[in-house]
Amino acid sequence: MKILDVEMILHGGDYNPDQWKDYPEILEQDMRLLKAANINFVSINIFSWIQLEREEGIYTFDWLDQTINRLHEHGFKIVLATPSGSKPAWLTRRYPDSARVDAYGRRAYHGNRHNHCMTSPSYREKVFALDSALAKRYGEHPAVMLWHISNEFSGFCYCDLCQAKFRNFLQEKYQTIETLNQRWWNAFWSHDFTSFEEIHPPMPIGEQNSVPLELDWHRFTTENTIDFYKEEVRAIRQYSTLPTTTNFPPISTEPLSLDLLHLDCFAFAKHLDMVAYDSYPQWHSGDDYQIGLNTSMLYDLMRSLKGNRPFLLMESAPSAANWRNACKLKRPKMHALSSIQAVAHGADMVGYFQMRKGRGQTEKFHSAVLDHDSTDDNRVYQDVKALGASLKDLAPILGSTPKHSIAIYLDWSNHVAIRANKGPRMVGVGDLDTIQMYYKAIVSQGYGVDFVNYDSSLDRYKVIVLPMVYSAPDAFWQKLHLFKEKGGIILSTYMSGYANDDDLIYPRSRHPLFEASLGLVYHELDALEEADKNSTVIGDNCYAVEHFCELNKLAGAEVMSRYQADFYQGEPCITHHQGHYHVAGGLVEAGLTELIHAIFTKHHIEKTLELAGLPLIATHREIANHRYLFIMNFTQQEHALPLQKTHYTLDNQAINLVRLTGFAYIILKENR
Amino acid sequence: MKILDVEMILHGGDYNPDQWKDYPEILEQDMRLLKAANINFVSINIFSWIQLEREEGIYTFDWLDQTINRLHEHGFKIVLATPSGSKPAWLTRRYPDSARVDAYGRRAYHGNRHNHCMTSPSYREKVFALDSALAKRYGEHPAVMLWHISNEFSGFCYCDLCQAKFRNFLQEKYQTIETLNQRWWNAFWSHDFTSFEEIHPPMPIGEQNSVPLELDWHRFTTENTIDFYKEEVRAIRQYSTLPTTTNFPPISTEPLSLDLLHLDCFAFAKHLDMVAYDSYPQWHSGDDYQIGLNTSMLYDLMRSLKGNRPFLLMESAPSAANWRNACKLKRPKMHALSSIQAVAHGADMVGYFQMRKGRGQTEKFHSAVLDHDSTDDNRVYQDVKALGASLKDLAPILGSTPKHSIAIYLDWSNHVAIRANKGPRMVGVGDLDTIQMYYKAIVSQGYGVDFVNYDSSLDRYKVIVLPMVYSAPDAFWQKLHLFKEKGGIILSTYMSGYANDDDLIYPRSRHPLFEASLGLVYHELDALEEADKNSTVIGDNCYAVEHFCELNKLAGAEVMSRYQADFYQGEPCITHHQGHYHVAGGLVEAGLTELIHAIFTKHHIEKTLELAGLPLIATHREIANHRYLFIMNFTQQEHALPLQKTHYTLDNQAINLVRLTGFAYIILKENR
Amino acid sequence: MKILDVEMILHGGDYNPDQWKDYPEILEQDMRLLKAANINFVSINIFSWIQLEREEGIYTFDWLDQTINRLHEHGFKIVLATPSGSKPAWLTRRYPDSARVDAYGRRAYHGNRHNHCMTSPSYREKVFALDSALAKRYGEHPAVMLWHISNEFSGFCYCDLCQAKFRNFLQEKYQTIETLNQRWWNAFWSHDFTSFEEIHPPMPIGEQNSVPLELDWHRFTTENTIDFYKEEVRAIRQYSTLPTTTNFPPISTEPLSLDLLHLDCFAFAKHLDMVAYDSYPQWHSGDDYQIGLNTSMLYDLMRSLKGNRPFLLMESAPSAANWRNACKLKRPKMHALSSIQAVAHGADMVGYFQMRKGRGQTEKFHSAVLDHDSTDDNRVYQDVKALGASLKDLAPILGSTPKHSIAIYLDWSNHVAIRANKGPRMVGVGDLDTIQMYYKAIVSQGYGVDFVNYDSSLDRYKVIVLPMVYSAPDAFWQKLHLFKEKGGIILSTYMSGYANDDDLIYPRSRHPLFEASLGLVYHELDALEEADKNSTVIGDNCYAVEHFCELNKLAGAEVMSRYQADFYQGEPCITHHQGHYHVAGGLVEAGLTELIHAIFTKHHIEKTLELAGLPLIATHREIANHRYLFIMNFTQQEHALPLQKTHYTLDNQAINLVRLTGFAYIILKENR
Repeated sequence: MKILDVEMILHGGDYNPDQWKDYPEILEQDMRLLKAANINFVSINIFSWIQLEREEGIYTFDWLDQTINRLHEHGFKIVLATPSGSKPAWLTRRYPDSARVDAYGRRAYHGNRHNHCMTSPSYREKVFALDSALAKRYGEHPAVMLWHISNEFSGFCYCDLCQAKFRNFLQEKYQTIETLNQRWWNAFWSHDFTSFEEIHPPMPIGEQNSVPLELDWHRFTTENTIDFYKEEVRAIRQYSTLPTTTNFPPISTEPLSLDLLHLDCFAFAKHLDMVAYDSYPQWHSGDDYQIGLNTSMLYDLMRSLKGNRPFLLMESAPSAANWRNACKLKRPKMHALSSIQAVAHGADMVGYFQMRKGRGQTEKFHSAVLDHDSTDDNRVYQDVKALGASLKDLAPILGSTPKHSIAIYLDWSNHVAIRANKGPRMVGVGDLDTIQMYYKAIVSQGYGVDFVNYDSSLDRYKVIVLPMVYSAPDAFWQKLHLFKEKGGIILSTYMSGYANDDDLIYPRSRHPLFEASLGLVYHELDALEEADKNSTVIGDNCYAVEHFCELNKLAGAEVMSRYQADFYQGEPCITHHQGHYHVAGGLVEAGLTELIHAIFTKHHIEKTLELAGLPLIATHREIANHRYLFIMNFTQQEHALPLQKTHYTLDNQAINLVRLTGFAYIILKENR
Repeated sequence: MKILDVEMILHGGDYNPDQWKDYPEILEQDMRLLKAANINFVSINIFSWIQLEREEGIYTFDWLDQTINRLHEHGFKIVLATPSGSKPAWLTRRYPDSARVDAYGRRAYHGNRHNHCMTSPSYREKVFALDSALAKRYGEHPAVMLWHISNEFSGFCYCDLCQAKFRNFLQEKYQTIETLNQRWWNAFWSHDFTSFEEIHPPMPIGEQNSVPLELDWHRFTTENTIDFYKEEVRAIRQYSTLPTTTNFPPISTEPLSLDLLHLDCFAFAKHLDMVAYDSYPQWHSGDDYQIGLNTSMLYDLMRSLKGNRPFLLMESAPSAANWRNACKLKRPKMHALSSIQAVAHGADMVGYFQMRKGRGQTEKFHSAVLDHDSTDDNRVYQDVKALGASLKDLAPILGSTPKHSIAIYLDWSNHVAIRANKGPRMVGVGDLDTIQMYYKAIVSQGYGVDFVNYDSSLDRYKVIVLPMVYSAPDAFWQKLHLFKEKGGIILSTYMSGYANDDDLIYPRSRHPLFEASLGLVYHELDALEEADKNSTVIGDNCYAVEHFCELNKLAGAEVMSRYQADFYQGEPCITHHQGHYHVAGGLVEAGLTELIHAIFTKHHIEKTLELAGLPLIATHREIANHRYLFIMNFTQQEHALPLQKTHYTLDNQAINLVRLTGFAYIILKENR
Repeated sequence: MKILDVEMILHGGDYNPDQWKDYPEILEQDMRLLKAANINFVSINIFSWIQLEREEGIYTFDWLDQTINRLHEHGFKIVLATPSGSKPAWLTRRYPDSARVDAYGRRAYHGNRHNHCMTSPSYREKVFALDSALAKRYGEHPAVMLWHISNEFSGFCYCDLCQAKFRNFLQEKYQTIETLNQRWWNAFWSHDFTSFEEIHPPMPIGEQNSVPLELDWHRFTTENTIDFYKEEVRAIRQYSTLPTTTNFPPISTEPLSLDLLHLDCFAFAKHLDMVAYDSYPQWHSGDDYQIGLNTSMLYDLMRSLKGNRPFLLMESAPSAANWRNACKLKRPKMHALSSIQAVAHGADMVGYFQMRKGRGQTEKFHSAVLDHDSTDDNRVYQDVKALGASLKDLAPILGSTPKHSIAIYLDWSNHVAIRANKGPRMVGVGDLDTIQMYYKAIVSQGYGVDFVNYDSSLDRYKVIVLPMVYSAPDAFWQKLHLFKEKGGIILSTYMSGYANDDDLIYPRSRHPLFEASLGLVYHELDALEEADKNSTVIGDNCYAVEHFCELNKLAGAEVMSRYQADFYQGEPCITHHQGHYHVAGGLVEAGLTELIHAIFTKHHIEKTLELAGLPLIATHREIANHRYLFIMNFTQQEHALPLQKTHYTLDNQAINLVRLTGFAYIILKENR
């Protein structure tokens, strides 16, 4: 199902003509050059508030009128932003409550961006009024196809108004302070509250030792940000029926340093008409295949947020991003490869930041379709142009997605709880590193993956993977129980099923249904120092086990492998119980790959493509009777992959052997 | 002399039934399981203020009555705490002056614990009232044996009231501002004050460059904290004659990263009926023998604080501590070994934090006698139970201590001064690293050690070790002079005797009596970069010298070894003058061990036990006609040690060879 | 031209008799010992405000009268300081506006030094009054030769008064807010201001993303500090015609970690009668030859600030500096060598901090001519004395300088812009590292170097070196154009000529005149990760290229060497166009040395001395008919250098071969 009413993969991105108002010849030239580069849309107005309202309450739309009309004349589609991501200085000065207060209680001075208070009544009022005027004026404009609400929502505010709203959130959730005390285990350290008024957010100068407080503060901030988003949408909806979204900020894709957004994207995505994402992998900063796998993972996550639906790649860098320690250029072929990668995983848009480099300020060294030289005799420009041409062939896949039988569990609250916990291991490995490792062990073999959280339907999957699912709502364990009852396969790790979503450990250390499913009884959890290694045998090989060694007593499960060292030598490390596989130790990736191969083969889990051990990434998108297969080579070496059945190139040549040079990709069609 | 009126080594620890008020079946079960685990006492009420005073001024003792009665019924002894270590949220909110102000002048919000202002009149008043009520109600209860005042006193407060009290402290100490200016050398940088009102504590936004200010601020905070403690004792004493103490917070035992408490324990100990300590070595994080030696050192320090008296191990972890980067489980046998170690060094109690793991909040992953599973089919539970059985055999040693002829000087003010100094070496090695190295070089050979500070009697010692005793009161040097006059041996290092306790360098760079004792005249002090090494020869071996090379001119001393390199090649490195040995260079531990062996042998210093070069730790406790000898193996290897005379096992078997497997210990009796 | 009316190289330094008021015998002894050490001047009163004005407005000059008279009697010249570098505590307390506000908006408490607000009216008033009284009383005193205004001016203040003054500065510079918005490219992120009142300095709690704001804040603070200095001079000038200066604080000389002062010394120097500098190289912390080269560079910079004029070495350490991590003693001969080095590069003074070690406070471990022992039987004392004797022979060179034909561009604003930029490379290599490397590649071959900024005359030079001259005023490029027209040689690097002094990138990425001069068109700039290396061939050798690879298209230039790897293999790395050499890649030092050798040889650039590849440093000072040549060996090895023509020692022995043992130097005369 198409997510936008368009006939082509969208190719374009952020455009800031407001920086060039004094350069009319540049603005004119842009139209020609962008057109020639096969750009078909631009996002505008993202940071243009000061152009529209230089004096409070007096709107001047001349500049925007001209801009939209010029774009329309030249046939560009428009993503129109509400400019609330960066406020004018006069507004901060006149309405200090619009500026955030940090965790030390300090109100921000004017500057930067993305730093308004989500609660501030004055800010909400000014934004609502301006959005209303924008919607009224442009909500039916034929060139405008999508509303881009604000920009990269993120961050926390600790002002008195946010604190008060947080207390209301808590009161609504818990009803009585006694209930909150019980569910938060507040008798600990005499932390029982006698009134909601006594509660502050977690702050370095206040409470720093309460996991449930951190959980609810994170949930509240997600909710309050969504509420702000919905208020902006409400302004738009008065005059416009066009879809709305906001662009999620980038998630780090450095191998082993993944961290999530501050806000819960699964929760936020419910309120968006479609998911949009800004992706900035640090290409060429290390092993590009690893960076490629991490990037694929985040695209799979984005596609999963609304349940396997296409998404928009709203921003990406045409070449170097300006905020890296070393702002390395994209090597030849990488631009095409990395852009196609998004499409391969479900994007119906390839968007860039940005169309033209500014002459000054923070992002003047960020790559753009048009460089300071403003010519087309430019490697980046030519790469963009060539990609745009290629994308035209992919119109048939608009709205399509893959169908995968494997899902990995990923939940923001689980992540917050593990981060906030004191113990059992506070550095090195967290839930996200584990998710990352499982994803790579699966996808590197040619399997495809979706992500789910506690809220998702598990119906379409054969396998659910639970990497460090420390806490989840009780309802999820019920759902998982039903999944298994119906023959589903579960693959779980150490430190799963321990706590409920209030962060209370279950009396026998695990949720009863999960314990029963495992066929294990929890005993102890050993956290290893970095220098410590245990090991275990899988197949014919012995693999290191690190970070965690969970010790369990058998209660029905059969042992697949045992610890080879330390005082628990001979105790079960990997077990199986009626389709539930449990990896109790921190098995390294190579061992995990072998284990997963054995399990998935046994249960006949279907691959996207047999990769035969080659470091390639394969994805597909399914339409009516056939599917489009994407095979991507993020290494610099050439690889030759024999196909197990005949595929067809986009120009319908039969093909049985794929030969991919470094950084090359190929798109094939396959009849189903 | 017994420090408590009990007939057994105490075995128990912190118990928080207030967290389980809604789980009566758990509370009932606890009594049975703890009893079966050979627990004979618990500490309660430490964090229970909110249970007793949920509404200001209205005390409800139902919960505590029930708890104490239940414990009494089951025969447990009780350590009863005053709950001032963590205040209720209503109190912080109603009396903001009860919360600390940090060094940036920021008043704390509510949260955490151990963060009340020691000066706050409202806090002192609320604590006094509650303590009085507790003492009145339970001060004569037959199960209660000891008052546990507050918890782990520590930290600094910079509020206006503390600042004013600090100024009073200074005025009382110096009488006139002119005296303070002279003693602080304030003409430097025009820092003469014209009034006490001009003085603030050392703060990042204020004075950061005054060693005497830092010294007095540290002394004041110690004094003010003791004053708070005494105020709590005063409340107790109205109704109870039971002894009182407080538990000193843990000191890091990481090899080479030792740091002391913020407060001066020698000063504090004078006001306690006995010393109590919380010990959390990071077992298995590296070389356990090194960790063992460090831990022994801290126990020796605790026993020395009141002049060689038994102390209480108030807290220790039954297995993993939850605040380590990797919360590693105690390996089999380590629990018994590490618990006996405390007893071996003078503890009459083995206390744990804690009896039962909470379901939620910060310490839910800290090990406990009773795990979340609440069963006795649990390794930790069984280890605790077995240890409890062993402790029963040790009742005869209650109240006993060793007698050592060696004392190492350790003083908080010296430490503060060295830390605060700019130069001569600001990273790497400080007084505590040096103390640690000397302790290890001595104790690893089988000698026993006490600690002394400037205030201690030196009468019972043959050897005083002075590791980087940069500053001390004049009176100490007088006392040391008398000690030497009577034939005492001194072993001192570089950077000793330089300054008085106001941090004024002596005119000839050293105290005159110390200079005369050394038979050396100070010349220069070279501080080496990490990469630099000098060396010196001891016996037949050449050893590296690092960090410091003090250069002295001979004035009577004889040279024992010389520097081997650099422009002072051939200058004296180690000297001797009438029983005073001086190590002018940063000799590495192996060389120090050889040097100490030579000196101590020459002067016939008696060992606790000849260890024959084995990595064992030996201690003893002396009673009437014989002594109990403890030999401990903190390595994983087996060691066999021939005894030089016949000893007897606790069941009176004669023994001449001790064979200790990894992590094993043995207790022997020896007739004197 | 002499910069001071004296007949000898000045030898002396900071003296703080105010710390010894209670020690009259010390003060008397000092005169004798300093005289005997060949000290001929001292700097006094630097931190003595409290001695003069203990009560507001009541001046007591007894102490200073006595001090000056005693010094005069004993024949010492005096540098008399205004004591504004450290205020009395009573002043901070009575006039809180005199204390700085930090970048978080926190007003400092009393303490430390150098932390007064440069804008504060009350501070300016108190300083003016005291300076006036000092000038009136001592402005004609025969012993006083120079005014030392305050001490080591540095730092920023963010108080409301400074902020308001900053806004005035901006208004005066830009006249209208529209002009400021355009020149700052403020349409970016909606950052257009509507009033100057909306502008704050760059602050962590405010704007952190505006290069032009950081540039102007830096320029304002330089200007405001100069204004404070001029106000002090105005007070002096009422009663005294003696010259005035202030001592610039030290610049780090660690190899590869050079950073500049916060204030623009080129701008400041215009207002000084002569430049004075405090130099504290970390001798013996690594390769002393490298440290020596770095130190030489800073002396060359100091001599260049007022256009090749002698300067004063106002402070240096006689041995260890107390603020190093390891305060290492100066090795034998290093004191003479490092002191002569300053003279060799143009210093007419060798000044020390300090004459006598204090007994207490921060600098009690900083080396001094007189140690705590107060004797002359002391290595440092003897070194100082010997040096003083040597300096007497150098009276003829007073006022002289070298004449160099090479100048390196160094500009504070360029540095601020590169530091503030986000991209293209934010760690590792900046402008100063590049300057440092070019300086070393040139000077290590025996060439001599001056420094210039955009304001300097280029007339006397044959070669101008432009290392990462990212931004400069348009006028500079015009001047450079004329320089080249007249046959000047230019050697420039990657990332030069990109931006104007508002930090706006030029439309074709480079200034048009600079582009024309280069004969290149800018294409892309690749920033490499630390692990990445490219390479290029110079002469017969292949050298690594790192950090930056600028890619250019030829537009007239000829290729001297090409990149050897990556996708731009074969593209030009080093080019030449009509006397303009451009190094587009981060060529390592060895390659740069070979390249410079080739270019300078071809263009017949004259060396100070042919060093024949030896690690020596050679400088000279020119007087009437001959020059004094200084050859210095900062290594520990002996080196023998054949001279290409006969030189003469100071006692007129002819010499053709120089043999220098480790840390030795020689001074030779040469007829021109």
